[in-house]
Amino acid sequence: MNALTWNQNESINPNLNGLEQSDTLAINERSKELMATGKKVYRFGLGQSPFPVPRCVVEALRLNADQKDYLPVKGLLQLREAVAEFHRKKDNINVTAEHVIIGPGSKELVFLLQLVFNSDIIITSPCWVSYVPQAKIIGKGIDVIHSSFEDKWQLTPALFRGYLKNRGKKDRLSLLILNYPGNPDGVSLAEDALKEIAALARENNIIILSDEIYGQLNHSGQHVSIAKYYPEGTIISSGLSKWCGAGGWRLGTFAFPKNLQWILEKMAIVASETYTSVSAPIQFAAVKAFKCGGEIEEYLWQSRKILAKIGNECAGKLNNAGIKTHAPVGGFYLFLDFSNFFETIQSRGIKTSKELCTAILNDTGVAVLQGSSFNCRADLFTARMAYIDFDGARVLAAARTIPVHQALPDTFTKIYCSKVLEGVDQLIHWFQ
Amino acid sequence: MNALTWNQNESINPNLNGLEQSDTLAINERSKELMATGKKVYRFGLGQSPFPVPRCVVEALRLNADQKDYLPVKGLLQLREAVAEFHRKKDNINVTAEHVIIGPGSKELVFLLQLVFNSDIIITSPCWVSYVPQAKIIGKGIDVIHSSFEDKWQLTPALFRGYLKNRGKKDRLSLLILNYPGNPDGVSLAEDALKEIAALARENNIIILSDEIYGQLNHSGQHVSIAKYYPEGTIISSGLSKWCGAGGWRLGTFAFPKNLQWILEKMAIVASETYTSVSAPIQFAAVKAFKCGGEIEEYLWQSRKILAKIGNECAGKLNNAGIKTHAPVGGFYLFLDFSNFFETIQSRGIKTSKELCTAILNDTGVAVLQGSSFNCRADLFTARMAYIDFDGARVLAAARTIPVHQALPDTFTKIYCSKVLEGVDQLIHWFQ
Repeated sequence: MNALTWNQNESINPNLNGLEQSDTLAINERSKELMATGKKVYRFGLGQSPFPVPRCVVEALRLNADQKDYLPVKGLLQLREAVAEFHRKKDNINVTAEHVIIGPGSKELVFLLQLVFNSDIIITSPCWVSYVPQAKIIGKGIDVIHSSFEDKWQLTPALFRGYLKNRGKKDRLSLLILNYPGNPDGVSLAEDALKEIAALARENNIIILSDEIYGQLNHSGQHVSIAKYYPEGTIISSGLSKWCGAGGWRLGTFAFPKNLQWILEKMAIVASETYTSVSAPIQFAAVKAFKCGGEIEEYLWQSRKILAKIGNECAGKLNNAGIKTHAPVGGFYLFLDFSNFFETIQSRGIKTSKELCTAILNDTGVAVLQGSSFNCRADLFTARMAYIDFDGARVLAAARTIPVHQALPDTFTKIYCSKVLEGVDQLIHWFQ
Repeated sequence: MNALTWNQNESINPNLNGLEQSDTLAINERSKELMATGKKVYRFGLGQSPFPVPRCVVEALRLNADQKDYLPVKGLLQLREAVAEFHRKKDNINVTAEHVIIGPGSKELVFLLQLVFNSDIIITSPCWVSYVPQAKIIGKGIDVIHSSFEDKWQLTPALFRGYLKNRGKKDRLSLLILNYPGNPDGVSLAEDALKEIAALARENNIIILSDEIYGQLNHSGQHVSIAKYYPEGTIISSGLSKWCGAGGWRLGTFAFPKNLQWILEKMAIVASETYTSVSAPIQFAAVKAFKCGGEIEEYLWQSRKILAKIGNECAGKLNNAGIKTHAPVGGFYLFLDFSNFFETIQSRGIKTSKELCTAILNDTGVAVLQGSSFNCRADLFTARMAYIDFDGARVLAAARTIPVHQALPDTFTKIYCSKVLEGVDQLIHWFQ
């Protein structure tokens, strides 16, 4: 017995017990393995933008490839200014550069926020895969508000009110995490719901982390932030990963209200002892992205048009076949509810959403991510589908041949997104 | 009173009490502020390589500016292969790609290691600024072994033996952090010391994080890793920041022995829930750096030659004036011991190394970083000087006009590094 191996379990932080690598990344790696064996895989698992990074932003990275200095912990001032201006223009919210922090992905910033903020977190289920594991790593408590298909898998004012009535009295600030347009649901909160949730949060000393990373991918281009109704208590999360197609670049942003600046300052302390600052060339390039000139606006316009078209077609097909899902409002996900097939599924010996997704992947090559990864009950048969398995550069080019204000023709998806439609057919077929 | 501000203290993780932004970064930001007011500042505070990123590596970043995909959590396979090969060639150590993990700076990887590894850490004082604050953020215990000028500010076998004799019996693995060539000391561990420390660590179930980020900047080019004597218990830390001049790029690497792979796997889980993966264009460019072709080797050769020359001249001047420091072995730091001036300093009403460095900065414009930032006792008058305030691109170009195996002429530093010499004179003058 080797002395250096005998005590592995005791040598690992017990908070990590039971945690595995993030499921979204795991499914991506698994899909690649299957593809390497020659299997046709419909890659609806990972939530990555299908579109290339806009050319002007790539060019800005080339121009800044020799930037070598450590940048300020909170981020390059020019970039913080661009992000603040972005939120002022896009969200009509009063943010200035000093209240912005740049991180290596908004995921890292969410982690820092959870680490510095001394309270349990409140989330809605289903929710994005990483909020809960992050809380577990730190040993934080989590209050889960479960939503249903009828709630459109989002927090409703009624659900929030019910939760508040039952929770004990709190002697300190709490933190609610919202995400809209949502991952995994593709749905957004209506403006009257935002207003009511804002009022309830204010009354109950709850601050909100408003994860709006898909905000610019609201298919209508009409994203509204809850900060409109709760400016003093809302931290807005954004970044390059989704609307700018640059997930692999790793750049996220938080914008704070002035009176929560004390949280930002504490996050910056932890940042200075961990990641230090975000990669300098990437930050310089990101300035170009957040300044949002005409090229970016056109790119966003086309992205939304394409995603709306394919998302709605998929939802239509699935609903017709009895797989319940809501028409998408933004982003590139559908959350699928297989409850109509409960007996079929059980008759195949399947007990959990993970087993279901594994069976579907093995039988059909369709990779979707089990609802349990999003903190849904494991025995609810749900899954997230990302309708992004197409060649984003080719599809963008094709969309650009069509006059800007004209709708994409009905044949468009059949020609350019055929694999997505085929994957949906395979999925439907599996249940029949 | 605003409800959202009333509870700030209770709303912050108590582990953060008393922590400020990392001192090295803080002094950089402070120096910039002073310069903005028109003051001449000798920037010996921040530990940043003075040299530009090698041209072939910048070019590789340009070529890969359109890489947009999320890369694997542990890092791009090509890069992990290049890092493994780098350690095999440079350190003569048997590492393979699967035992390498890439992070956004080695600082972040050190943090993850501290987070996942369930034991107190053992460090030598003085030590790099971030080991201890990281432990505090997580709420970890720290065992400090204090070294002195006579120990060359490094861990000696005698000090280690003394520590081990006094510590209680441990029922699990412990973690010792070593850093050589050292920050803040610029000294390295001799091979016989490495051998003895390795044996003691092995006997006592202590694994070693061997921070060798300055390894390739050993001025003789003859860096030896403790992994040579303790392969099964040593994790080697490296990265682009120092030897490749790319601190602002944020890319660090850890190489594990096979039988500590279980720690790497746990770090990857936390990575997947925090930073996800390192920026894709940066990773692709780093492959070029770690492959270490002729251009890189020539760059390293020149870097070492220049740093050795200027470092030794500074040490000579300082010692002549009674400011004690050791001749540098690697990296770009001198650790200054002002104990000969104890009475002069006290007579000026100065009680701590921080007050001393503030007075020196205000009076002379010389920015050096107080010993207390490196976990030295505050009332020991010590400081770290980074002898890097020169135009690295210009100095490299000048060095390249001199035949490779010829020494740099005596006039070289006077012409090309005059500000460093001037700053040292200013510093000496302050004590007289």
